[in-house]
Amino acid sequence: MAITLYDLCGRDERLRFSPYCWRVRMALAHKGLEYTTVPWRFRDKEALAFADYEKVPVLTDGDTVVTDSFDIMRYLDKAYPTKPILGEGVSYQRVHFFKLYVERSVTPALFRTVAMDLLEAIHPDDRAYFRETREARFGMRLEDVNNPEQGRAQLKQLLAPVRDQLRASPFLDGEVPSGADYLLFGSMMWAYTVSLEPLVDANDPVDEWFKRMLEVHDAVAGKAVTIRDL
Amino acid sequence: MAITLYDLCGRDERLRFSPYCWRVRMALAHKGLEYTTVPWRFRDKEALAFADYEKVPVLTDGDTVVTDSFDIMRYLDKAYPTKPILGEGVSYQRVHFFKLYVERSVTPALFRTVAMDLLEAIHPDDRAYFRETREARFGMRLEDVNNPEQGRAQLKQLLAPVRDQLRASPFLDGEVPSGADYLLFGSMMWAYTVSLEPLVDANDPVDEWFKRMLEVHDAVAGKAVTIRDL
Repeated sequence: MAITLYDLCGRDERLRFSPYCWRVRMALAHKGLEYTTVPWRFRDKEALAFADYEKVPVLTDGDTVVTDSFDIMRYLDKAYPTKPILGEGVSYQRVHFFKLYVERSVTPALFRTVAMDLLEAIHPDDRAYFRETREARFGMRLEDVNNPEQGRAQLKQLLAPVRDQLRASPFLDGEVPSGADYLLFGSMMWAYTVSLEPLVDANDPVDEWFKRMLEVHDAVAGKAVTIRDL
Repeated sequence: MAITLYDLCGRDERLRFSPYCWRVRMALAHKGLEYTTVPWRFRDKEALAFADYEKVPVLTDGDTVVTDSFDIMRYLDKAYPTKPILGEGVSYQRVHFFKLYVERSVTPALFRTVAMDLLEAIHPDDRAYFRETREARFGMRLEDVNNPEQGRAQLKQLLAPVRDQLRASPFLDGEVPSGADYLLFGSMMWAYTVSLEPLVDANDPVDEWFKRMLEVHDAVAGKAVTIRDL
């Protein structure tokens, strides 16, 4: 069956930076599934009306429509059980915790680091919408959320357990990457795609891991267009 | 075979508060294993010389000697495979990350909350040793580390992903507690045993979970002596 992913794009249609879409792209690559993407922009709600959803990722697989990145990962495990991404039982519970750790701790620190870069990466027609929705969420102006130095310092501290984990194994999930790796990578790829500045120190095990992640699955992420290519 | 756990005790021999020993006690209870404990105090290095180790927990199982709480949990899974605690493969990797999250994030915030309570709970003969080693580790006086208000605020923020997880399932590992639950519980039991003040708000899902954890496995933790019983 044909798989289609509705994927956020920026001021250049090739610029794809949504952390939630990147999770799914890595999961699709992990499963070895072919798919096409439909570039989507923030205000194009009509394009997703068929899914009764307002944001991406949205995945269609034949007649099946799945929304929400984590639900899509779960769907892929059920529909294509070879090479589990999230797993089942205790394994699933633990990666569900990891998802919450990424979303509640790491992603806010990354947003603080690249808030203005994101605004710059977004299509000019979407910037007012982006500013309005994000400023409502944070209760302050984007310029005040944006504090790259503080964001990077927070990130360094928050990633302490990740750093220690990567001293023990090349990927978070072991010898090969899996669900936990894709969840964190999605968020870091988001910032990496739009920012000119490095997120972590060059000698940090997290940086070494990020570089490995850019290369896995035929370098699907490493080949992606970033702000530095435009 | 007879199992013995060398377990830190406080100013009353019945007061057992080591977070690392509590992990192991919960793991032993999870496996339904009988064991005896040997109360141990910080400076009693000679008692552990047989293990070539300087701190507790140390577990002996017949002729086998195992040191380090996480290694003991792993040993129990290998020696008694029924009802895994940590699990294997991806499941193990993910709980290893969770251990690092607890140790690098949660435990320091708890120490900040109960540093002076801990000093009070320890045997008077051990207090100079405790102060000296901990002050060297933190690079400041215990009185300056100790900041319960700030510690509780940090804890509230750090536990955000735990809180969300517990909104989805009664235990971190699902319908029944397992490795991740024991790792976090050990640290929280440490603070709960020595402090008169609540650690988290009464309506917090983390508090509800903690109360459930006190009751599991015949309330092995709920029946333990705390500072409030002395």
